[in-house]
Amino acid sequence: MAPHRVRVEALAPEMLLGPRETRHLHVLRLNPGDAVRVFDGQGAEAGATLTLLEEGRAVLTLGERLAGAAETPQPVTLAVALLKGDKLADVVRAATELGAARVQLLVTRHADAREIGAQKLQRLRRVAEEASKQSRRAVTPEVLPPLPLAEFAWEGTLFVAQPGSVARLTDHLNWDAPVTVLTGPEGGLAEAEVAALTARGAVAVTLGPRILRAETAPLALLGALVATGV
Amino acid sequence: MAPHRVRVEALAPEMLLGPRETRHLHVLRLNPGDAVRVFDGQGAEAGATLTLLEEGRAVLTLGERLAGAAETPQPVTLAVALLKGDKLADVVRAATELGAARVQLLVTRHADAREIGAQKLQRLRRVAEEASKQSRRAVTPEVLPPLPLAEFAWEGTLFVAQPGSVARLTDHLNWDAPVTVLTGPEGGLAEAEVAALTARGAVAVTLGPRILRAETAPLALLGALVATGV
Repeated sequence: MAPHRVRVEALAPEMLLGPRETRHLHVLRLNPGDAVRVFDGQGAEAGATLTLLEEGRAVLTLGERLAGAAETPQPVTLAVALLKGDKLADVVRAATELGAARVQLLVTRHADAREIGAQKLQRLRRVAEEASKQSRRAVTPEVLPPLPLAEFAWEGTLFVAQPGSVARLTDHLNWDAPVTVLTGPEGGLAEAEVAALTARGAVAVTLGPRILRAETAPLALLGALVATGV
Repeated sequence: MAPHRVRVEALAPEMLLGPRETRHLHVLRLNPGDAVRVFDGQGAEAGATLTLLEEGRAVLTLGERLAGAAETPQPVTLAVALLKGDKLADVVRAATELGAARVQLLVTRHADAREIGAQKLQRLRRVAEEASKQSRRAVTPEVLPPLPLAEFAWEGTLFVAQPGSVARLTDHLNWDAPVTVLTGPEGGLAEAEVAALTARGAVAVTLGPRILRAETAPLALLGALVATGV
């Protein structure tokens, strides 16, 4: 079985864990001497040994550093409109598995929601952290509070999913620069919004002739990215 | 607003709806004279007019037939291992949006579940029907009861997601023949299972270096298909 991965503040010769992570180790029935992995959510990952395990605290001793091998050649940002209910948690979880380095929430003209509470944002960040462990990434994607679409700036290539487009993501994808994929709310992006993005250099791409739910479109775009092997 | 889509047994000059669909029309506050669409789940779709609306029954009158424009060039099958809880419903819903014509459930060596109850299978079929309406498809994917992996036969190309593969779906995809994408359970397919599939002509493809959950992998593969514009 692959070693359990523990998120730590920073890689250090001795790392003290708090109650939450310690409880996890107890649940997994780990014992002093067992091997684990540690990662800092910024790309650093290493082997480690559990050297102390008590009620409420544990100590890990650093082992060999590992390359951050699970990252895309350039950082991938998912820019996604606010969605209702728990849909964003599902999107963030899958986007983390699919290699996103950052999730930027957006407020768009048609909006399922116009803001997000601090608690909900915190929950999305926890979801990203959990998912990065489970998918064996050393990087936890940032989840950034919502910006109005017009204020969202990107570097590199931005792909926006737009029904009726003929351009294909796979034809325009290159890894010379960061990649952003952008998807709208349940009601879709307004035509003027897509036009404003393409005027700023975005590429409007197809996801086929069907209507996708707002929570499916980001995964389809990210799925197309990872299917190229990155 | 796009007209409401109603699933009917078969397209006919006059179509009588039962209580469930009729309740829907009431909820949508439709009135006699309103335009709807009808589809039979087999690829036929047409305009229709609501000509009678009572408590528990409604009559639609057939209008012009529409081309089944939302289908892939060749049928796509998703072959997916049985998964725990409600995960299969999420997979079937998204697979329907992403154009799958059929979902074949599989029993694999590592299995989250070895069988599925009749009620649960029925529920998956309802999910497929609902999702095909919402995604404006004229075809409802079949959901087929589980087969042992070794007994699963396919036509055309089969892609199996396999961590560590270097082959890419987009490099091997052509639409001369039906396409199947196959994904395993939470614990993954056994190496011998993948080897048996590739010995039978399957192409093992990459989804990048991260570990995907069993319910994310099918969507990534189908996302890669639809991002090619089909």
